[in-house]
Amino acid sequence: MDRERLDRQIRFILELDKEKSILRQTHLSGGGPRENDAEHAWHLAAMTWLLSEYSNQPVDTAKTMLMVLLHDVVEIDAGDSYAYDPEAQKSAPERERKAAERLYGLLPEDQGSFLKALWEEFERGESPEAKFAHVMDNLQPMLLNHSNGGQDWSSRGVRRSQVEERNRHTAEGSEAIWAYMKEIIEQNLQRGSLKDE
Amino acid sequence: MDRERLDRQIRFILELDKEKSILRQTHLSGGGPRENDAEHAWHLAAMTWLLSEYSNQPVDTAKTMLMVLLHDVVEIDAGDSYAYDPEAQKSAPERERKAAERLYGLLPEDQGSFLKALWEEFERGESPEAKFAHVMDNLQPMLLNHSNGGQDWSSRGVRRSQVEERNRHTAEGSEAIWAYMKEIIEQNLQRGSLKDE
Repeated sequence: MDRERLDRQIRFILELDKEKSILRQTHLSGGGPRENDAEHAWHLAAMTWLLSEYSNQPVDTAKTMLMVLLHDVVEIDAGDSYAYDPEAQKSAPERERKAAERLYGLLPEDQGSFLKALWEEFERGESPEAKFAHVMDNLQPMLLNHSNGGQDWSSRGVRRSQVEERNRHTAEGSEAIWAYMKEIIEQNLQRGSLKDE
Repeated sequence: MDRERLDRQIRFILELDKEKSILRQTHLSGGGPRENDAEHAWHLAAMTWLLSEYSNQPVDTAKTMLMVLLHDVVEIDAGDSYAYDPEAQKSAPERERKAAERLYGLLPEDQGSFLKALWEEFERGESPEAKFAHVMDNLQPMLLNHSNGGQDWSSRGVRRSQVEERNRHTAEGSEAIWAYMKEIIEQNLQRGSLKDE
């Protein structure tokens, strides 16, 4: 066995542990505390397996699961950038690029370059897998938020146009799931947890 | 689209959210709070992809990842049973069997029966995938505990024989990883965080 290889893998595995302490803006269902990146990624991977039948194009489910499992690794260095915070969104790409260099650089070269390329594919959002991964990444917080009465939107005064902008590519990944999400948006407009303007 | 099918899948996805509130006995690396089931399962899935090259027998990596992602779903109803608590271990199988009936029964029949069978395969621990999944399930808390000075063992007075009993099948899944784990056990005996009796 190549001991240096295993040591590098274990080093990365312990670094990953930090994702469990990166808080998102979404609250757990049942009015729980804020969700962290590891919980979110775990949920997306399970959802990918359960829902990939609704992808517009056939996807490699295993590849998409790995993509979503690790799509937020860069936040270990770059932090979470809330989807409806324009300043955070603007500076995110450069911070995340540097984070990917350092974090994937911890691994043996073959695994590090594979995972870095998979993250870049996710970020580009062009392949069927990346499109479907983004559908999951947008659906999951919406489901939790909706189950909590839409409080993640109402507490920040989120507007319909912001949700639609964030989801401007969702129908490219899954028409069926976007139709379902539009129902959720409509229900939140009706109950006033999402602003219509 | 079959709307009842999607509704059942979404129902299960929201039920899964509860795994984020089930606390384990392991503490996060860096002396953090106790880990929850969702964080643990996410970590195992990433580790499976990174380390499956050390499996004694070739494994279907994607299948093993799905197996570890959902191996603790039954704890939503049955709770976490600490590995070194004999009473909890004794009553776990019956509680977990009932939990699997209810939880996987929420899903469309094809997905529910597939995932229930995958969980049963994990529990039997006989297939190459199940053996490797158990290696990950035992290695992960040991890595976190070791990075924290072995406090999860020392605070409960855990003995070497208990760790060896829990890992009695680990070498069947991966000789290489068991050799690495034996080094960790030795180091914890030397620093007194694990009792040698």
